[in-house]
Amino acid sequence: MWLQEKMPRLDNDERAEVNQENLDRIFTIPESSGATLARIEQEISSNIDGFLREHIVAEEKSMPEIEADFSSVEITEQPFYVQAYTDFILKHLVAQSVHTSSPGFIGHMSSALPYFMLPLSKIITALNQNMVKVETSKAFTPMERQVLGMLHGLIYERDDAFYQQWLHSPDHALGAFCSGGTVANITALWVARNRCMNEGTISKSGLHGAMQEAGIKGLVVLVSRRGHYSLLKAVDLLGLGRDNLITIETDEQNKVNVQAMREKAEALREQGYRIMSLVGIAGTTETGNVDPLEEIAALSKELKCHFHVDGAWGGPTLFSEKYKSLLKGIELADSVTIDAHKQFYVPMGAGMVLFKDPESLQSIELHAEYIIRRGSRDLGQQSLEGSRPGMALLVHAGLNIIGRKGYEMLIDQGIEKAKHFAQMIDEHDDFELLIHPELNIMGYRFAPKWIQECLQKTDRDSVNWINEKLDLINKNIQKAQREQGKTFVSRTRIGMEKYNGAELIYFRVILANPLTRKGDLTAVLEHQLEFARHELAQEILTEIKQRCH
Amino acid sequence: MWLQEKMPRLDNDERAEVNQENLDRIFTIPESSGATLARIEQEISSNIDGFLREHIVAEEKSMPEIEADFSSVEITEQPFYVQAYTDFILKHLVAQSVHTSSPGFIGHMSSALPYFMLPLSKIITALNQNMVKVETSKAFTPMERQVLGMLHGLIYERDDAFYQQWLHSPDHALGAFCSGGTVANITALWVARNRCMNEGTISKSGLHGAMQEAGIKGLVVLVSRRGHYSLLKAVDLLGLGRDNLITIETDEQNKVNVQAMREKAEALREQGYRIMSLVGIAGTTETGNVDPLEEIAALSKELKCHFHVDGAWGGPTLFSEKYKSLLKGIELADSVTIDAHKQFYVPMGAGMVLFKDPESLQSIELHAEYIIRRGSRDLGQQSLEGSRPGMALLVHAGLNIIGRKGYEMLIDQGIEKAKHFAQMIDEHDDFELLIHPELNIMGYRFAPKWIQECLQKTDRDSVNWINEKLDLINKNIQKAQREQGKTFVSRTRIGMEKYNGAELIYFRVILANPLTRKGDLTAVLEHQLEFARHELAQEILTEIKQRCH
Repeated sequence: MWLQEKMPRLDNDERAEVNQENLDRIFTIPESSGATLARIEQEISSNIDGFLREHIVAEEKSMPEIEADFSSVEITEQPFYVQAYTDFILKHLVAQSVHTSSPGFIGHMSSALPYFMLPLSKIITALNQNMVKVETSKAFTPMERQVLGMLHGLIYERDDAFYQQWLHSPDHALGAFCSGGTVANITALWVARNRCMNEGTISKSGLHGAMQEAGIKGLVVLVSRRGHYSLLKAVDLLGLGRDNLITIETDEQNKVNVQAMREKAEALREQGYRIMSLVGIAGTTETGNVDPLEEIAALSKELKCHFHVDGAWGGPTLFSEKYKSLLKGIELADSVTIDAHKQFYVPMGAGMVLFKDPESLQSIELHAEYIIRRGSRDLGQQSLEGSRPGMALLVHAGLNIIGRKGYEMLIDQGIEKAKHFAQMIDEHDDFELLIHPELNIMGYRFAPKWIQECLQKTDRDSVNWINEKLDLINKNIQKAQREQGKTFVSRTRIGMEKYNGAELIYFRVILANPLTRKGDLTAVLEHQLEFARHELAQEILTEIKQRCH
Repeated sequence: MWLQEKMPRLDNDERAEVNQENLDRIFTIPESSGATLARIEQEISSNIDGFLREHIVAEEKSMPEIEADFSSVEITEQPFYVQAYTDFILKHLVAQSVHTSSPGFIGHMSSALPYFMLPLSKIITALNQNMVKVETSKAFTPMERQVLGMLHGLIYERDDAFYQQWLHSPDHALGAFCSGGTVANITALWVARNRCMNEGTISKSGLHGAMQEAGIKGLVVLVSRRGHYSLLKAVDLLGLGRDNLITIETDEQNKVNVQAMREKAEALREQGYRIMSLVGIAGTTETGNVDPLEEIAALSKELKCHFHVDGAWGGPTLFSEKYKSLLKGIELADSVTIDAHKQFYVPMGAGMVLFKDPESLQSIELHAEYIIRRGSRDLGQQSLEGSRPGMALLVHAGLNIIGRKGYEMLIDQGIEKAKHFAQMIDEHDDFELLIHPELNIMGYRFAPKWIQECLQKTDRDSVNWINEKLDLINKNIQKAQREQGKTFVSRTRIGMEKYNGAELIYFRVILANPLTRKGDLTAVLEHQLEFARHELAQEILTEIKQRCH
């Protein structure tokens, strides 16, 4: 095959024979305990951090180099031995993966995981239940419903009678468990769309006919310009069109301007559009801010439209007695998205959408003969996905083993750590704080104090010119830091009120890993300053200096 | 809380204290190796079948009883110890889950898993990569692209130059990895919808405007009446409306009647509809039959519409030299769905959709500033889902450790086992074969030979009356068998040509578990006959006897 010479391929001598005995063996008897795969399992169990540190190499290989290792599309006729395959994977895949749980990697929304998530994940894999129906999940079905009920209770705080009536009711659902926040947001807006006209019309006859009949020009969704990109996917998928996700300006704290939202909604109505849903954000992806949810709730009540809250990131702030008031109004939402693989510290692949009204999900309900029969308890009746794993167990475990108080501590510490880091930046001579933390997300950039002072005094053209130069330095610092592999922040670019709305590149920091200590934060800045001392950066700084004088 | 007395609750004495030390502990140091969770891991590693047999109890508890164990929505303030939680889970969740990998459970599409899937799943969890972008997945990104390329090659068999050009091209994708076949089918039809008019119009302006402009009454998708229910979800979600999934009659082998499909398509066109896509099925969920894919491909070429093949179940038949000709024409499809958690023997949560044209997925492409940037290699640019786990590794492992020859053996044995079981049924005095296996799915019911003979001779009213009585017996047998928990078949209900299209309940059998032996099949029938001897069944048989004489 092509690229063969460049590629690290498993040796041909190492092929296993395909016969009944070998086939039976891989489906039943584990290899001897001395073998690599068993050893790895043991290593992970006893010391996951050690395993990751040992096997993930720090220095980054270039993508084309890594791609060369995964470039043949040939499927081997004769299989490889498990041992040979495992060696390959350790050397070429694990070594070149990302240490998402490292305390100095504060640019992702992934963090270290509680150790008990690993053995419980293994139980999920071993049991291999399929949540689509009771016949293939049995006790996992009520367990998942309980988890959805617990989250519903966290948000909506209904009384015992409410949960007694709806939690296990076959025809009702307090929410849907899904693969992630994107599917959760899509599900919420799907429900909103199907309910926004004569119940059932859109679902049955389609959008075009229903809108023609109602004489509507378009269905629109309004959200702050800080809304997650999954909302664009949702309006595309649902047939509304991306143009009909209307983004609204935000204030200096990245909170949506509800007055502007109201004016826009009214103008759109006059033009013949119907407001399908308002979306409030509880923890924007890029800045961690929370919209004024109570005000948006009031507006959606006036407009008689759906109110969805995207709390994928910030939802678990409800555990904090100190900070939960930031989310005031979330209990008025018709639907709320929360990602468990974010601040519930569950591995990747666990999102949830909760609905205030246990009948909401009936608007997407579906039945079949061999499965998800009417009147059954099958979860697949009211979900976007079909077959799904029993990931809800991991949320169930977190809620019981970490508990309210544990999650509260995690949330509080993250926010306080972000405030601390913001203060460090503010007091530092070489950095500029751009995103003040409301939750545990903040943003800053490399910009020595003298440049910051210059930016305050100079003319608008120079401000833009200098900011473009700073963008270049900051982009290069972030890339170099990532490639070095010791610490990591992400980078993004948004419009900043401080600089007349100009879009600036900044370092995005997420402080959710409980293992991140102050020393890690210091290290992040030290590494960045290292790269700022490089030739190219210094040249640009000299240019800026000339402009500033 | 309510239900407290009925509920097995963890004891209040068993609460752990929330403090920094305990929090650090759960994120770093595993409990001592003697503890339950560590012991379970060890048990699963050394003998998964033994673990499942030991912990899953055979006798079924009623759902209300199980629900009582998961009925409180209270989130504990102070957490439980891992030990206490694990004991609870073993007793109340694992014990009441379904033994999906048992050789006698031949009613699900889940089977036993190769043992290496477990430690590799653990590596995925430990690394916790997020496939949405390279920054959080690195080598996992090219690895997933390679897997998609291997599957693309299996279906489309393009030459090396093709894969060299497209496999790792940032702006292209040979497919999308997703949480399951439902999301795969939705993605395929989403692409079909966005491409069916002036490229970009629907995605940008929405369905209503685009259709108005083009003067189209509706977009329709045509599929056999054996199509999977996820297609109904797809047309609802995409805004076409469920009425616009047009189901076409099938022949005696449950294959779509392409002539009827053509006539329907032409009639719809005359009425002002546009044919968005034809869907062919490679392995219907209920009967395991394959549509005449070549003919459907030819028709879709005539109609100039998208041609999607749902090969969620049957796709891997391509590994079999002996049986792959059944899928002839699949290489003409614009898109193909394959589920890895079915016949690739990967744990739950792994679907794929492959596209013939590497540009297809650009019709749903999306970018953002902090992620999935234009020109990046980020997989999240062209996928329905956002954050996703690195499940592709398990398919990669299967393809390398089982290989073409191994999968071929699994496919061939399944089909031959189904043929053998069909013969057993045919020769049995008490059962009637209703679905002859084409792949490894077949169907039959309890219907003693004398009733079968009577059904051939008697009038139409009596046939219907007898079939209704048999439905009742078969439904009860299936339920009793499931509750007993020793063996399992599923049941469904479809229209049978043999009985003038009347819908009949039958036992649906899927022979994909390599550990299923002839003895297991005999046991399945013995258990069914046990329940057929029960009083109620005997009474009904007496009634039928009277009608037959």
